[in-house]
Amino acid sequence: MEITYKQRIIAAAIFCAIASTTVNAQTADLLPSWNEGKAKQSITDFVGKVTKASSPDFVPPSERIATFDNDGTLWAEQPMYFQLLFALDRVKALAPQHPEWKSKEPFASLLRGDVKGALAGGEPAIGQIVMITHAGMTTEEFEKIVKDWIATAKHPTTKRPYTEMVYQPMLELLAYLRANGFKTFIVSGGGIEFMRAWTEKVYGFPPEQVIGSSGKTKFEMRDGKPVLVKLPEINFIDDKNGKPVGIQQHIGRRPIAAFGNSDGDLQMLQWTAAGSGPRFCLYLHHTDAEREWAYDRTSHIGKLDKGLDEASAKGWTVVDMKKDWKVVFPFEQK
Amino acid sequence: MEITYKQRIIAAAIFCAIASTTVNAQTADLLPSWNEGKAKQSITDFVGKVTKASSPDFVPPSERIATFDNDGTLWAEQPMYFQLLFALDRVKALAPQHPEWKSKEPFASLLRGDVKGALAGGEPAIGQIVMITHAGMTTEEFEKIVKDWIATAKHPTTKRPYTEMVYQPMLELLAYLRANGFKTFIVSGGGIEFMRAWTEKVYGFPPEQVIGSSGKTKFEMRDGKPVLVKLPEINFIDDKNGKPVGIQQHIGRRPIAAFGNSDGDLQMLQWTAAGSGPRFCLYLHHTDAEREWAYDRTSHIGKLDKGLDEASAKGWTVVDMKKDWKVVFPFEQK
Repeated sequence: MEITYKQRIIAAAIFCAIASTTVNAQTADLLPSWNEGKAKQSITDFVGKVTKASSPDFVPPSERIATFDNDGTLWAEQPMYFQLLFALDRVKALAPQHPEWKSKEPFASLLRGDVKGALAGGEPAIGQIVMITHAGMTTEEFEKIVKDWIATAKHPTTKRPYTEMVYQPMLELLAYLRANGFKTFIVSGGGIEFMRAWTEKVYGFPPEQVIGSSGKTKFEMRDGKPVLVKLPEINFIDDKNGKPVGIQQHIGRRPIAAFGNSDGDLQMLQWTAAGSGPRFCLYLHHTDAEREWAYDRTSHIGKLDKGLDEASAKGWTVVDMKKDWKVVFPFEQK
Repeated sequence: MEITYKQRIIAAAIFCAIASTTVNAQTADLLPSWNEGKAKQSITDFVGKVTKASSPDFVPPSERIATFDNDGTLWAEQPMYFQLLFALDRVKALAPQHPEWKSKEPFASLLRGDVKGALAGGEPAIGQIVMITHAGMTTEEFEKIVKDWIATAKHPTTKRPYTEMVYQPMLELLAYLRANGFKTFIVSGGGIEFMRAWTEKVYGFPPEQVIGSSGKTKFEMRDGKPVLVKLPEINFIDDKNGKPVGIQQHIGRRPIAAFGNSDGDLQMLQWTAAGSGPRFCLYLHHTDAEREWAYDRTSHIGKLDKGLDEASAKGWTVVDMKKDWKVVFPFEQK
């Protein structure tokens, strides 16, 4: 995966060196995993018109902001959010230091292997699991924990590293947009520090271009050395109404393009679409039960219901993952 | 001022095109307003060693993060923070819609021209003035208000536009660092949305590279159009202990260089200095009562006391503005 991504970056760099910013980027196919059709065409049409200096829709590079949801948009999110699987693995790893968990929910169920039972406690149970696994250490300690996990953990059904469960057509789309002068950001409901530990290596997003949910942190001196301690207290939830708020807080400029896959992304797409000038909104529709998963209006994870209606009403691009993508994951290519 | 900055950018771009990243940037003097001496030397030594590929202190460009305080570091802050002067001007502009202010403090004193009396109420009074002038409108409306103000308002003693009261040597330093592959950020106690309205034009910081204090915002639909409404509620104070927190939240990577002028910047400098590898910390010392202002340990604004002691103990660079700078403001050049 990593090599594939680097190859794309090199291809994009070479392309950049050849193409001036006034040349329409459609001439080279930087989106080889996308089948020809309406979805791909809508992307290249948009990029073409905003990058062509003579176009009435030209947008200067500094304003070419594109935002991407992460779970279900850049990598998979089934059978549950990967960050929750990280938290469950952490509970198991921390259990020897917490003998009391054997008789305390949601930990007791979890340690017996009954994930469903553990999560039956709903948001309070999930909140407890997240806080115990994401707070009480320094930011540097947490980063190391995530890096170690992401390097070794395997997805429960595919048995692949999580970083291989990213969408090849979306990696191409990121490289294509960057080659056309776009500045790309992740805007995810996932944890900002959880993502930043690996998004640069896997997708090419430096930490300052990753926006997510966060806990509060506290600056303090430990043995004369300054540290930031992660507190068990929510700072910001970057989901639904929170996404435009997070975008404004971190970027301070409205995106001209936004990419999501669920109702949690709807406000980000609405906020993007409501700007003046050319705008592009895209929903991934998970339609491929064979290569990935098929789910939408009634799914507990990544529910896409209102968003699908609004996309249809507003003429936003909806990607049918089964029809529009030649491959889903990089490992399908040999 | 703007032309001067653009000239620097062009110079930097030309320099970039000539120099490869492995060439030490000291060969060209991009810091003409800095007198030769220890301060200037410490800057060029640091930049030289972190950009030279063969140096044991080489730092890859993605990690060349430099953070700058704003008030008193990039522009002046006397006789009071310019954002407070903005707020006072706004109170006057809003007064006709608030007849009740004639008998309500701190507004009554303010409208009589008695700024000192108005501010005698301390933080609660200042808080009231800030909330009434910074909340209750959309983010877009606020941006327009700031842009209009900054384009027309004049400094109370110099009668210059505020954007001319920026430090010429610091503009050069920003261009020099950017030409050497640094990504520069503002990390200020000032309001994030107040600064973003003009920092790109004046200093070359795009909004996503500006970190500051903020109020909460709320996403809502108004006549079918999404807006972000500024609420009269503090979200984050980016000062003192808050600066490393803000850096981690927005950048997610520790700076290798940090620049400030007051005790409010001390934790940012400590956080920067405590990273592994080469680090650079610099304090501006306001020593020039003639060309600017002279103040430090006992000043109510921009107090530099603990910071001065720590800089001395740790060997950080302290710029004596009177001795180290050939000019302070761009308008001193003809």
